[in-house]
Amino acid sequence: MAAASDSTELPIAADIDAAAKRLAGVAVRTPLLNFPVLDARLGARVFLKAETLQRTGSFKFRGAYNKISSIPTDRKAAGVVAYSSGNHAQGVAHAAQLCDMPAVIVMPSDAPAAKRERTAALGAEIVLYNRDTEDRAAIAQDIAQKRGAVLVPPFDDPLVIAGQGTIGREICEDLTALGLIPDIAVVGASGGGLIAGIALAMKARVPSVAFYSAEPEGFDDTLRSFASGRRERNSRMSGTICDALMTNTPGVITFEINRRLVGAGVAVSDAEVGFAVGYAFRELKLVVEPGGAIGLAALLAGKLEVHGLIVIGVLSGGNVDAGMFDRLIAGG
Amino acid sequence: MAAASDSTELPIAADIDAAAKRLAGVAVRTPLLNFPVLDARLGARVFLKAETLQRTGSFKFRGAYNKISSIPTDRKAAGVVAYSSGNHAQGVAHAAQLCDMPAVIVMPSDAPAAKRERTAALGAEIVLYNRDTEDRAAIAQDIAQKRGAVLVPPFDDPLVIAGQGTIGREICEDLTALGLIPDIAVVGASGGGLIAGIALAMKARVPSVAFYSAEPEGFDDTLRSFASGRRERNSRMSGTICDALMTNTPGVITFEINRRLVGAGVAVSDAEVGFAVGYAFRELKLVVEPGGAIGLAALLAGKLEVHGLIVIGVLSGGNVDAGMFDRLIAGG
Repeated sequence: MAAASDSTELPIAADIDAAAKRLAGVAVRTPLLNFPVLDARLGARVFLKAETLQRTGSFKFRGAYNKISSIPTDRKAAGVVAYSSGNHAQGVAHAAQLCDMPAVIVMPSDAPAAKRERTAALGAEIVLYNRDTEDRAAIAQDIAQKRGAVLVPPFDDPLVIAGQGTIGREICEDLTALGLIPDIAVVGASGGGLIAGIALAMKARVPSVAFYSAEPEGFDDTLRSFASGRRERNSRMSGTICDALMTNTPGVITFEINRRLVGAGVAVSDAEVGFAVGYAFRELKLVVEPGGAIGLAALLAGKLEVHGLIVIGVLSGGNVDAGMFDRLIAGG
Repeated sequence: MAAASDSTELPIAADIDAAAKRLAGVAVRTPLLNFPVLDARLGARVFLKAETLQRTGSFKFRGAYNKISSIPTDRKAAGVVAYSSGNHAQGVAHAAQLCDMPAVIVMPSDAPAAKRERTAALGAEIVLYNRDTEDRAAIAQDIAQKRGAVLVPPFDDPLVIAGQGTIGREICEDLTALGLIPDIAVVGASGGGLIAGIALAMKARVPSVAFYSAEPEGFDDTLRSFASGRRERNSRMSGTICDALMTNTPGVITFEINRRLVGAGVAVSDAEVGFAVGYAFRELKLVVEPGGAIGLAALLAGKLEVHGLIVIGVLSGGNVDAGMFDRLIAGG
């Protein structure tokens, strides 16, 4: 794969190795955590990759940094542009900041002030749009063209996918050090970049590991796409507590990878996700946002047969506001 | 040091090595975490040992397990007894459970139901006492004598201190792997077992590392004892959000170690501790109880000059109920 910014070629394991080199000493090498209390509950050995502890509180920094640090020198001054009100916004803003590049983030005008402030604090310029009347992708494209800035897609990009894949590479390294071979992995899917990258990295080392996507009920476009063989769309764009998992349809590149390497998944209810957030608070002492807890939720809800297996989950983000967190942990 | 259960001999570094062998594969080898956002704030390289991720949610499991697994075979059937309504109770109950030994925990009758249930769920028998009219130490001693059970002290015991010392041993191992030498460590002190064990382990490897105790304002018996050279007492036994740090006076053994190896400390207000709990939620995505956050609070409040240094902190526990946690994170 070339490092060109608009490539739609499929990334391969070597691209993840290259991403790991770029991210070394920059991204946090997050711990792969094991909790005896969770193992006892599930009758399995469960390892959770804590991307909640990554820069900006989610895995998104990895893909953004891999993409942005690959931009050729002569295009650096024009900077980058992205559209997101959530974890991708912060990942892009912080990666650009570390690369000494300007960043524009296109956000809905009704995005919570806290998210705008947080992204602005990372040095990004915020451009607001009207969610009802304007098209954020068109606005971002327009800014990119006018400024010569590089658009950083949230998932459907080989360099972004390869960046997320470094998570799978680290998981394999840590398991190898423990003398363990994973049996099964469950990873949240929205656009599908996280699970695509991790599956690419892990399947290259352990072809036998079985992958499952986890999605909110009603937003299981990836699961339905596996069944139909084509990219299905969700009928709604709101209505789950998993605000990080509301992408409308799988990406072109990500789906091509995921239908080959994953091909199976589960849907999880908001109540099950809420329970997982509370469980992580009470038993694991970790702050996980709803979308970041969906893989754990699938395990706790017994959606997958894991008894006796070595199981991998990813806690993909921890950016939840205090009010929402309080509501979710109060139920436990 | 002998492994006798009532020894008051000072533990040495070799006792910590022996403890590490007993705890290997049983205690969680908790990660030593680094957060770029915290480094940037303090202008230092800060490493936090996350004992929040230990079995039972605090470091107390280490000392309890080291003590209990050292009990001679002929005394195992009679089990153990301890008095505590908090983290030590859970640590002892769980360690006894793993050693297939009965445990009696003496708890105040007004202890929160959640704490009683949690300790009982770990297999312990709960004996309640009236906080106003009865002496818990006497009750525990009485049970120990009648049953032939071994009393597991919360801190003033060589095996308990050596168990906590494994934390310092792991910190040094992880720093060595990173090629780093610590300059300064700040650790919460109540009875003083945690900081004594860690100082013993780390000073044996890096004699130059400077240690500071952190205590709640009004409960700074260790700090005042450093100043006077004798074991001072706190005038109150309630009135801080750090419920885990309300021991009345330093231990005999722990103070003997701490006056030699630590000798300096800081006191931190409840407001500063509350801020640290909220900061850990918002920025570090970790659930830390007030007492477990006191070292971080000392750093965030600027109580120590750390600019340019390699700094060690310990997040010693995460057992905070949802109501208290909500109040603390709402302020941020």
